Amino acid sequence: MRLAVIGAGAVGRSVVDLAGEHGHEVVALADSSTAVVADGTGAGSRTAGVDPDAVVARKAERGIVGDADPEDALEADYDVLVEATPTTLGDAEPGFSHVTRALERDRHAVLANKGPVAERFGDLRAAVDDSDGEIRFEATVGGAIPAVSTVEDIEPGHVTAVRGVLNGTANFILTRMAAEGLDYDHVLAEAQDLGVAEADPSFDVDGTDAALKCVILANVLSFGAADDPADAREFTLDDADVSGIRDVPGSALRLAAEDGRTVRLIGEATGETVRVAPRLVPENGTLAVSGTQNIVQIETSHAGRLNISGRGAGGPETASAVLGDVGRLE
Amino acid sequence: MRLAVIGAGAVGRSVVDLAGEHGHEVVALADSSTAVVADGTGAGSRTAGVDPDAVVARKAERGIVGDADPEDALEADYDVLVEATPTTLGDAEPGFSHVTRALERDRHAVLANKGPVAERFGDLRAAVDDSDGEIRFEATVGGAIPAVSTVEDIEPGHVTAVRGVLNGTANFILTRMAAEGLDYDHVLAEAQDLGVAEADPSFDVDGTDAALKCVILANVLSFGAADDPADAREFTLDDADVSGIRDVPGSALRLAAEDGRTVRLIGEATGETVRVAPRLVPENGTLAVSGTQNIVQIETSHAGRLNISGRGAGGPETASAVLGDVGRLE
Repeated sequence: MRLAVIGAGAVGRSVVDLAGEHGHEVVALADSSTAVVADGTGAGSRTAGVDPDAVVARKAERGIVGDADPEDALEADYDVLVEATPTTLGDAEPGFSHVTRALERDRHAVLANKGPVAERFGDLRAAVDDSDGEIRFEATVGGAIPAVSTVEDIEPGHVTAVRGVLNGTANFILTRMAAEGLDYDHVLAEAQDLGVAEADPSFDVDGTDAALKCVILANVLSFGAADDPADAREFTLDDADVSGIRDVPGSALRLAAEDGRTVRLIGEATGETVRVAPRLVPENGTLAVSGTQNIVQIETSHAGRLNISGRGAGGPETASAVLGDVGRLE
Repeated sequence: MRLAVIGAGAVGRSVVDLAGEHGHEVVALADSSTAVVADGTGAGSRTAGVDPDAVVARKAERGIVGDADPEDALEADYDVLVEATPTTLGDAEPGFSHVTRALERDRHAVLANKGPVAERFGDLRAAVDDSDGEIRFEATVGGAIPAVSTVEDIEPGHVTAVRGVLNGTANFILTRMAAEGLDYDHVLAEAQDLGVAEADPSFDVDGTDAALKCVILANVLSFGAADDPADAREFTLDDADVSGIRDVPGSALRLAAEDGRTVRLIGEATGETVRVAPRLVPENGTLAVSGTQNIVQIETSHAGRLNISGRGAGGPETASAVLGDVGRLE
């Protein structure tokens, strides 16, 4: 498949880097102000399209991906648009419009960007209904963990709840607090030094990132179970009941440990509710994954509980989910 | 989709029972000597096809599913043949021929029967190449755990190994031996009383069942990674290096526990090897699932390790995997 990759951060660059190994060709790449579009003459070391090494080098040295305009990438001749621009809330722009433009051209779109799927699921579905193209968004929930496709294969009507540890930054902090008996502020500083937490960590530690993922899952469950999508309840971030980890004191973790438990930031979605909060879980239990690991726990009607754990985030991990989605569109 | 279900054991009956909920219609069901074929007049409580309740009752009371012949089921007008007859080794008959007949008619086949996929993978692929139909076999490995489809989505070339606890009977026995400090013979008797182990438990406790599942995974990895399927190495049960749990003494488990470890029957498949043996694993680690639970651990090139645990066996669980495959064929 020919891919137009919109967004040249860690995920976009990893998609460009790994596409060739999966048998796909990147015909265009755009960041917020520049773009490169393959000229069709076959230049490039790994693909007939955009040269991944050249592009990555150019971005690192000059801060641009090419001399073209992002509009040229959106208008290129591609099969699948990969939406990997930063998550934005509310109107979810410009990511939402990138996706709808692809659909208007009867092309497919694969999202790593949570914004459109969490905040405008109904509008996205309407755009898909009017198009020959489809959308997939495995990479928006749980990175390398196949959460969305597993729920799809079980069929959402047969999934009663999905819960888990969905943010690696918050989980790393809680794991370290419990392991070392340190306070939140101390461990946050450590996480920032390691690059596990951002300079402004609120998106992760306030539970917003986990909540967006749960909102996406709630939308999948709700629309999947509805006989008529027009009747399905649509969720947005506003519907989520969210508490983060800033106020979890070290003493809470010590107390929990005396009882064989620990604290994890757990997100849960059903077809009716979305909730993210720190919760006590058994210390050696399934939900007590460590460090930056994620886990998704799927409750099913006929097959009991499924647990899927793995790396929730990272350029190559998320790109792997994106390319898996591209493969399912072939 | 219209399903012809061949095999009326726990799995076949569960598929008949649950098909309607997934929007599918069972048009025929056969056991080893009888069959029932829907007459197209819409008789039946849940589906326009075969009446699940009537069939289950008839099988329980009279030992037959209907007055027709299995040949009538194989010749029925269906979209997908579900092969749920008992696993046989070597030539994998009659299951293998049931599948090839479906493919010769350009229909699809979904297997719960491990025999054809483990023992005649190359022949199956050749039959698929000559057909408009496809085969899927999620239900042959790990019951409700989406092992095969997850490996497919990551793309086998990017999976370096798959390992796990793939037999619930053996795992139950080892779990109980460790928990109660009892010997193998004692716990086997308990397992048989509970219906977790068969009167002749060898298939499970000698590791054959786990080995067949690993052979199937090795075939998926091998054929998936090959540039030319004609060059891919084909695995059968004979290629597997297999040790079971009969000779694991209670003392081994006690010794392991002193070191924070326990023993599990672990199967592992790469594109080159298949091995099943009891192994020491950390007591609270990921592979130390309890009771009849299964776990599949997938090592990937770019996304680290994925762990998927859940119920490995059971009528509804396996039927859930079968119906998930049917959904992917639509």
